[in-house]
Amino acid sequence: MQRFKLTIEYDGTGLAGWQKQENAPSVQGYLEEALLRFTGLPLSTIAAGRTDAGVHARGQVVHVDFSKEYPLHTITNALNFHLKPHPIAVLQAEAVSDTFHARFSALKRAYTYRIINRNARLALEYLRAWQIHTDLSIERMQEGAQYLLGKHDFTSFRAVACQAASPVKTLESIHCEQYENEILVHVTAPSFLHHMVRNIVGTLVMVGTGKWEPSHIEQILLAKNRAKAGPTAPAYGLYFMKAVYPSET
Amino acid sequence: MQRFKLTIEYDGTGLAGWQKQENAPSVQGYLEEALLRFTGLPLSTIAAGRTDAGVHARGQVVHVDFSKEYPLHTITNALNFHLKPHPIAVLQAEAVSDTFHARFSALKRAYTYRIINRNARLALEYLRAWQIHTDLSIERMQEGAQYLLGKHDFTSFRAVACQAASPVKTLESIHCEQYENEILVHVTAPSFLHHMVRNIVGTLVMVGTGKWEPSHIEQILLAKNRAKAGPTAPAYGLYFMKAVYPSET
Repeated sequence: MQRFKLTIEYDGTGLAGWQKQENAPSVQGYLEEALLRFTGLPLSTIAAGRTDAGVHARGQVVHVDFSKEYPLHTITNALNFHLKPHPIAVLQAEAVSDTFHARFSALKRAYTYRIINRNARLALEYLRAWQIHTDLSIERMQEGAQYLLGKHDFTSFRAVACQAASPVKTLESIHCEQYENEILVHVTAPSFLHHMVRNIVGTLVMVGTGKWEPSHIEQILLAKNRAKAGPTAPAYGLYFMKAVYPSET
Repeated sequence: MQRFKLTIEYDGTGLAGWQKQENAPSVQGYLEEALLRFTGLPLSTIAAGRTDAGVHARGQVVHVDFSKEYPLHTITNALNFHLKPHPIAVLQAEAVSDTFHARFSALKRAYTYRIINRNARLALEYLRAWQIHTDLSIERMQEGAQYLLGKHDFTSFRAVACQAASPVKTLESIHCEQYENEILVHVTAPSFLHHMVRNIVGTLVMVGTGKWEPSHIEQILLAKNRAKAGPTAPAYGLYFMKAVYPSET
């Protein structure tokens, strides 16, 4: 047996998310179908982050165990061939030790959320970014974001359906960046609660429009009440960027 | 009568290009349909650049004559509403004098061509960029591009079907830019021949891979023979960025 680490990109539009499901197309479903066609064997995959329906990935990490060795370019070429025409691509394959686990070995995850701040609906970025009509102040968003840095009880930013044992998470970095009318929110943490990034972005937008003061974020955290934070930003603005593992730090 | 200048964005995927056609969806067709629903009148539009099937636009310019005045935000909101669900958006509307002509008043046009230089097929950028497997040298591409600057007979870079009266055009600027594995080729000129940008990019890729020397571009120009230049780069990597008018210089 040889374990392989795959780095994959996908356009989440029209997919029911990472996780395999009975009657809906999923990234895991299509990837395992491609693995079956390539190896002739039913193989299971595990991902660093189980992204929701509509969420995209530029660097999702997956591991899979093959019954034998293959040259790395054979793996990427064969999987990319069998993944057609689905919007999923294998960027890289690496042989790893069988102690490597895409989900449990990850030291941190990085997500980027894309906002386009303009009045007109989106054409080229439709379902690839969240359009906000009202003028956003990136300075206010960045100021508000600082209250979220570090270790906190993120109950106010947690989906009701979240199954994590504890609402305490450590946000390692959060940074807002602007290019013309596009605003990117970059976050990293060892792990996130369900919908945490989208709830943070929905809340920062309330601050960016001037509806809430940046310092109000502190009250929201202390309230430990989901109803106190902003709306959940739509899935289609979210991109899983990468997972970092011990050997890479 | 009041003439309006519209700045529009579109995702060219699945569209037969700018120009209205009998049995195929086009940008002009959808835009004139939206104008009809908004004003109740059949109105004609003229664009700065008649983009081909699959070509995108971030700043196409169109003019249209309305029988009466409308507030600018009414025009953009109404047209964006009636353009749904087509991947076309009106970014801006401006009242202009009736001597303004989207095509004939334009002093120059700017296009950007997107290349993604990687081995894996495209997922997020599928039909939005041209994937090149072989390693490209942006330095070689930039060096080769310099031979195209200025006024030349661009017969070697002209589509067979091109209807322009003369093959002589003036390339005002050409610049290659790289961000990680993405290469952008930016060009501006008062006007272009049919397929000229795509033929230039297809030729620069031959230089970028090392197949041709940068200085070979000079021979290609002098040959005045389409067969001497590189292949036509695919439509889906091309973006019409903007048109510049006298009042804006």
